Amino acid sequence: MTPDGMALAGTTLGALRQGGKRALAAALARLERNPDSDESQALLDAAWRAPGGHVVGVTGPPGVGKSSLCAALVAAWRQAGHTVGVIAVDPSSKASGGALLGDRVRIVHEASDAGSFVRSMAARDRLGGLADQTLAAMVVMRALFDRVLIETVGVGQSETDVAGVADTVLFCVQPGSGDSLQFMKAGIVEIPHLIAVTKADLGPAAERARADVAGALSLATPGDGSWALRVQAISSRSRAGLDRLVEALEAHRLHLAQDGRLAITRHRQSESWVVESLRDRFGREGIARLHRLGFDLTLASGTQPFQRMRELATALETPQ
Amino acid sequence: MTPDGMALAGTTLGALRQGGKRALAAALARLERNPDSDESQALLDAAWRAPGGHVVGVTGPPGVGKSSLCAALVAAWRQAGHTVGVIAVDPSSKASGGALLGDRVRIVHEASDAGSFVRSMAARDRLGGLADQTLAAMVVMRALFDRVLIETVGVGQSETDVAGVADTVLFCVQPGSGDSLQFMKAGIVEIPHLIAVTKADLGPAAERARADVAGALSLATPGDGSWALRVQAISSRSRAGLDRLVEALEAHRLHLAQDGRLAITRHRQSESWVVESLRDRFGREGIARLHRLGFDLTLASGTQPFQRMRELATALETPQ
Repeated sequence: MTPDGMALAGTTLGALRQGGKRALAAALARLERNPDSDESQALLDAAWRAPGGHVVGVTGPPGVGKSSLCAALVAAWRQAGHTVGVIAVDPSSKASGGALLGDRVRIVHEASDAGSFVRSMAARDRLGGLADQTLAAMVVMRALFDRVLIETVGVGQSETDVAGVADTVLFCVQPGSGDSLQFMKAGIVEIPHLIAVTKADLGPAAERARADVAGALSLATPGDGSWALRVQAISSRSRAGLDRLVEALEAHRLHLAQDGRLAITRHRQSESWVVESLRDRFGREGIARLHRLGFDLTLASGTQPFQRMRELATALETPQ
Repeated sequence: MTPDGMALAGTTLGALRQGGKRALAAALARLERNPDSDESQALLDAAWRAPGGHVVGVTGPPGVGKSSLCAALVAAWRQAGHTVGVIAVDPSSKASGGALLGDRVRIVHEASDAGSFVRSMAARDRLGGLADQTLAAMVVMRALFDRVLIETVGVGQSETDVAGVADTVLFCVQPGSGDSLQFMKAGIVEIPHLIAVTKADLGPAAERARADVAGALSLATPGDGSWALRVQAISSRSRAGLDRLVEALEAHRLHLAQDGRLAITRHRQSESWVVESLRDRFGREGIARLHRLGFDLTLASGTQPFQRMRELATALETPQ
């Protein structure tokens, strides 16, 4: 076996399933370090072709209780027998020079539970290409776990990013918060598929808060219009509302499974990813040059985006 | 006179001052269309060297009353005898395919008032380079007006962008809004110099709202730490609090005038602009190539950024 072949053999999906958390962590680190290597591309290609689990993105303003909600969701899924992968996007603030949020509650997670895995990724500022790396990590984890949860910091840009990688977007608000809904009503933030009104153990205001949010967004329709936005009040502490939230997520998963919606969603995400990654790497001049060279930036149906990205990057790197 | 010379003569600052609003609108349109032309560069160079007015950026979530506040500020400044230029950044939402916000109240502005001028610019998505074009327009308007007001849509990214072009950042919140403050506390949104609590005519809750905001951000210190964040309640309708807000803006202007702070602020903005513009145009591969070619991306003191940008772009466009 050639050294190349050995490297490839070490990162097939089967080997990752066998190798446990250490093998997966190492593979994701290699993927992040060198996404264009043959080894990375082989892993991405295999992962891309796997049927894969349900990818749920969780967004919302800081302090709203996203991490607690995510921990509750992981527990609920594990209890139902699903394996769960989590991608936790850590904010790196421009102002504070890359420090993590001090008050961020990390997802409580059992390191000894072989059926769940948490991967932290740093959210660089918009120039660093979060989406770039998240898609690759997500595709690998999707191939390995029944459910993949992506938790973001909930700023404007990361909301758009998560919509670019998740099958289902869950937005968290707390009772009485108005700004987030304003953003949605104004069409600045994309409409999620589900809204969780968190901290519903704070009193009888929970149902009113739920009704308020539902009312404020009554005309909002996410995606292609075939799915009606659902709002669920939830307490991560008492777990009230959690079962119904899990049911709503499952309902959206089944909705996507019909009429080829999931394939359409994922194809559209891949297509956007190729263009955004190209722009991150080569700027608008790079995009313009690809157009001049006659390249079509739409993605043919069924094409996997990583291979296409490498082709286009190679074309740009070749002197004319 | 050569044709080139004629074109240049038509766009000197003196000619713009003489030519009124039509001449200015035309010059800004040419600048937007072709920022690298000799004509644009000559105008930018002259504008850059002019002493220039005070640039105030206004941000905050949609629906908070930014436009009303801006209109009130323009009126107050005009009454005080200052000339005022306004750059109104219109949102173009990804979701709605570029439509303007339906409920956005446009700045009421007297077209017949020769002492004020409003320029609308479309906020493209993050990839289009808002900051790119705003800096050039701002520099020209700064050279011509005593006060320049930049009103943004108030999404995460545009907040960062406005901090990149304004001397003073004014953030608007309405009473009871929590999400925006959460963003600031978390260090995700940069701390502004001033906060206006809008809609203060809604009742006696105004002072409490002001105290709440001040309390929530009591430890926040914008910029270099020498300026203490100020919070002012204001009613754009009754104009209550407006005088004190204008005074606070003036206090920050005077603060910047000391110890070379304004020069430092503007130099830092120029330096960031060069790097961000390069990244927009040439991507991170372009930046990497400039480093390999031995270019220093820091900006020598006193260098104007537009000329430097053209030099670096030329270096990247020259085949090696």
